[in-house]
Amino acid sequence: MPTEQMVAAHPDVRGSVNEALIAAVDAGYACAQACTSCADACLAEQMVAELRQCIRLNLDCADVCLATATLATRRTGSNEEVIRKMLDACTTACRLCGAECDKHAGMHEHCRICAESCRRCEAACRAALGTM
Amino acid sequence: MPTEQMVAAHPDVRGSVNEALIAAVDAGYACAQACTSCADACLAEQMVAELRQCIRLNLDCADVCLATATLATRRTGSNEEVIRKMLDACTTACRLCGAECDKHAGMHEHCRICAESCRRCEAACRAALGTM
Amino acid sequence: MPTEQMVAAHPDVRGSVNEALIAAVDAGYACAQACTSCADACLAEQMVAELRQCIRLNLDCADVCLATATLATRRTGSNEEVIRKMLDACTTACRLCGAECDKHAGMHEHCRICAESCRRCEAACRAALGTM
Amino acid sequence: MPTEQMVAAHPDVRGSVNEALIAAVDAGYACAQACTSCADACLAEQMVAELRQCIRLNLDCADVCLATATLATRRTGSNEEVIRKMLDACTTACRLCGAECDKHAGMHEHCRICAESCRRCEAACRAALGTM
Repeated sequence: MPTEQMVAAHPDVRGSVNEALIAAVDAGYACAQACTSCADACLAEQMVAELRQCIRLNLDCADVCLATATLATRRTGSNEEVIRKMLDACTTACRLCGAECDKHAGMHEHCRICAESCRRCEAACRAALGTM
Repeated sequence: MPTEQMVAAHPDVRGSVNEALIAAVDAGYACAQACTSCADACLAEQMVAELRQCIRLNLDCADVCLATATLATRRTGSNEEVIRKMLDACTTACRLCGAECDKHAGMHEHCRICAESCRRCEAACRAALGTM
Repeated sequence: MPTEQMVAAHPDVRGSVNEALIAAVDAGYACAQACTSCADACLAEQMVAELRQCIRLNLDCADVCLATATLATRRTGSNEEVIRKMLDACTTACRLCGAECDKHAGMHEHCRICAESCRRCEAACRAALGTM
Repeated sequence: MPTEQMVAAHPDVRGSVNEALIAAVDAGYACAQACTSCADACLAEQMVAELRQCIRLNLDCADVCLATATLATRRTGSNEEVIRKMLDACTTACRLCGAECDKHAGMHEHCRICAESCRRCEAACRAALGTM
């Protein structure tokens, strides 16, 4: 994704981007895709009844990741308090979803990959929070 | 919106709905619409340059409201910690967006109505938080 | 939702709103909520394995309804060709999701209510298309 | 993004992925980010009043891209008619947004990069349509 190039071209940014926040944006979109995909794959598994909580957390995590990545993309004016709360909510959503996916990682490859995406996004959001 | 009927028909809910959470869902969708509309109307105003911060907060608020309303709709399994963080983030997003819209309420009817939607959603999210 | 008031306050609209398009916006948000709720309730049903296609169509329909309602809210500048294609895609998404929900309406109240929301949104999008 | 790995791990896909559809998913998320970023950067430009139509098309394009990428991610059950309509709507949204961004590409680097993202997404959606 051209996230860094785009943000660097913002008239109020002029090249001095917050790298950690950019990384959180990219990780957020990637995690939204992974969670949407994992919810969908879990739904097709024979043991779907045992994957209900995983699907629920996947769907919630996808929604939170997308909203967080979208907000963290914007640089006009400011809305730091809300971005911080969203980065924090996203850290929690990813931690819980990743932990649930981990339980099924041995049996379902999509859960294993999704758990990795969640951990990456959780770390990226935490690092971004540390810069604000 | 048929929010209450829908949630009441969930197999794990069986009629015993959390009214405050239902109200937050409805207020969230309504506030997302109002904020999307206010951002769009501000953009068309002659004094758009002075409404940049209002547009920014409107766009962010719409995203947070939609994600919050979507999460608060789900009842399968559980994800209370994340819903609480989203309700809290939504309270903040609505408070800040409503305060900014209020500044332009005397001049722009869309800002006046949007500020009302934000206050209603802020109060609904706070009330829902109080029940969890 | 204050949709009509908001759009009527847009500086380029000045009170002369397209009522059919406003109705499509409201029906779109309501249907997104109903479909999100129905997907979630289906997932909690004991017979979840037989409701996979219903959940899939619900999730898709919710996404298309939200995007359509958001686009149809905007009045600054113009983007009629895209709105028409989205209204058309939304008509199809609602028709197919409503038909699938109808199959389960006798057994699941959430499917019955969701099918109604889909039909209402399908009709509203078709009527809006007729005005553009 | 781990899109291809995730879809390849879906129980009904078992490794035989539609590469063109995967490419459309990745291009859709990337274009949503670019358009969100371009709308935000345009809003901060001194000549914002002349960028209204660009911002409008950016916001619409971001919404259509996200919905399309999300739908095109799912493989459980089927919903081909709706995916085709969304890929078609996304092709149009990207074509129009890219053409508008191109007009400002000489003056604004963010419009130049965004136009590229739009063209890439338009081509990816068209290629995916050709396989369905």
